[in-house]
Amino acid sequence: MSSDLAGRLTEDGHRLEVRVYFEDTDFSGVVYHARYLHFLERGRSDFLRLKGIGHRELMAGTFGAPMAFAVRRMEIDFLRPARIDDVLTVSTRTRQLGGARVLLDQTVLKGDEVLLNANVKVAVISPEGKPMRMPPRVLEVLAPGASQ
Amino acid sequence: MSSDLAGRLTEDGHRLEVRVYFEDTDFSGVVYHARYLHFLERGRSDFLRLKGIGHRELMAGTFGAPMAFAVRRMEIDFLRPARIDDVLTVSTRTRQLGGARVLLDQTVLKGDEVLLNANVKVAVISPEGKPMRMPPRVLEVLAPGASQ
Amino acid sequence: MSSDLAGRLTEDGHRLEVRVYFEDTDFSGVVYHARYLHFLERGRSDFLRLKGIGHRELMAGTFGAPMAFAVRRMEIDFLRPARIDDVLTVSTRTRQLGGARVLLDQTVLKGDEVLLNANVKVAVISPEGKPMRMPPRVLEVLAPGASQ
Amino acid sequence: MSSDLAGRLTEDGHRLEVRVYFEDTDFSGVVYHARYLHFLERGRSDFLRLKGIGHRELMAGTFGAPMAFAVRRMEIDFLRPARIDDVLTVSTRTRQLGGARVLLDQTVLKGDEVLLNANVKVAVISPEGKPMRMPPRVLEVLAPGASQ
Repeated sequence: MSSDLAGRLTEDGHRLEVRVYFEDTDFSGVVYHARYLHFLERGRSDFLRLKGIGHRELMAGTFGAPMAFAVRRMEIDFLRPARIDDVLTVSTRTRQLGGARVLLDQTVLKGDEVLLNANVKVAVISPEGKPMRMPPRVLEVLAPGASQ
Repeated sequence: MSSDLAGRLTEDGHRLEVRVYFEDTDFSGVVYHARYLHFLERGRSDFLRLKGIGHRELMAGTFGAPMAFAVRRMEIDFLRPARIDDVLTVSTRTRQLGGARVLLDQTVLKGDEVLLNANVKVAVISPEGKPMRMPPRVLEVLAPGASQ
Repeated sequence: MSSDLAGRLTEDGHRLEVRVYFEDTDFSGVVYHARYLHFLERGRSDFLRLKGIGHRELMAGTFGAPMAFAVRRMEIDFLRPARIDDVLTVSTRTRQLGGARVLLDQTVLKGDEVLLNANVKVAVISPEGKPMRMPPRVLEVLAPGASQ
Repeated sequence: MSSDLAGRLTEDGHRLEVRVYFEDTDFSGVVYHARYLHFLERGRSDFLRLKGIGHRELMAGTFGAPMAFAVRRMEIDFLRPARIDDVLTVSTRTRQLGGARVLLDQTVLKGDEVLLNANVKVAVISPEGKPMRMPPRVLEVLAPGASQ
């Protein structure tokens, strides 16, 4: 696995660089608002990945019963637009952990400039869509301060 | 213009039916969370469309200077999942109007069941991304109670 | 089920109207090339749907073993661009049927103007990705001349 | 600019690693067919990028009149499916150069296994969608054997 491709763990979370391509833009000339949610999800996935948790393993039941992550709530402030060819940084930090959901703070930056702030509540669900308890291993790796 | 394709105006807003296709789902078996933002945007676009305001005309300067809509803030609760082949209803209502932004309440339903609630703040921006005043014609058609 | 939302059967196939939204465009001002594949897939799905075959039922094993459609080959000519707010027609016709794959001719039109031509080879696969025989019911409804 | 993020030039073209995320998959469990076109476009964009040609500069007229790339024709064979968490390699080579279009061979691999082959014809168009001549600088960098 290329760790560059999966970003890097930081003192309090994770950072991932993403490129803006044609697919991410719309006819108004800037990045389509829903595409930032893709960038945020890549950040969350790679944060888990670098801690040893992959979506395929989660779904295969490696961490208990088969499960997948699902977003329960998002508050998103779209502050400044990104454009084609930009390299953005997706920063992810755990704000609060619970047995059934995790609250994450995520930011999209261009250099030092904040383009977007998001508070994201994620939970794990069964393949049938039922809420489940977070597996201990997932809670452990997502605990604030556990990044290194 | 097919008015069916653009949904219909209601007493206090707009309703649009959308179909869930392959493109909207992910490997966990349900609709990918960011895709609901596409559905919400279709609802907002068709609400304006049935009131005589198209994105192409906005960008061409028909309502003053060239402009496009941009989402500034979203609060979204993802309550229940939708699945392939489902027909969903996107409901859009104006909550509050201002000179520089509009607050909308949007809901995604499957039959009578609410799958998602969203509060959306939209603004208009210039092609260079600068905030602009809402054109009077846009404010007029989005005014609560002006739907019919 | 709204049959409008699923297009309509024609003498030799199926026609579906689709709207171009923000999500479909890119910063060059026109529809992003990969989005036409979404439109084509909606046409194929609704063609089957109006014949009584849904993706959820296919995956649930209603037509034999669990299966899903997969695209095997596409030849696509992108002739003219579509733009925001356009209403396009997706036309789908069966060209050739085989036990393991179906060849379809698909066209995207804007009014009478052809924007895109595609030859599409589709097959059915198991949930593990293995090629399968087309169920008789699927072959029957896709047979050229069986549209009405 | 991170050259890792933009892949690397090879003896006869360009190679880019891409990760499969939630956004790329569909409910059948594998990558949605249209998403491979995104991967291919990222490969083409980063090939040009490493040669000093960005989409923003093209559109700003840095290489002559304002222009953007557009896909004219694709032949795609979808051979084997990719899945969530996979790291794929997008390989891009110039097959033939002309004044008005470029033919590219593109492949998506998982390790040594070929998942997809594509022949892609691209052209440059004006912001109004009119075909244009390829700028000499673009022809120069895309010439077969000019990669290093």
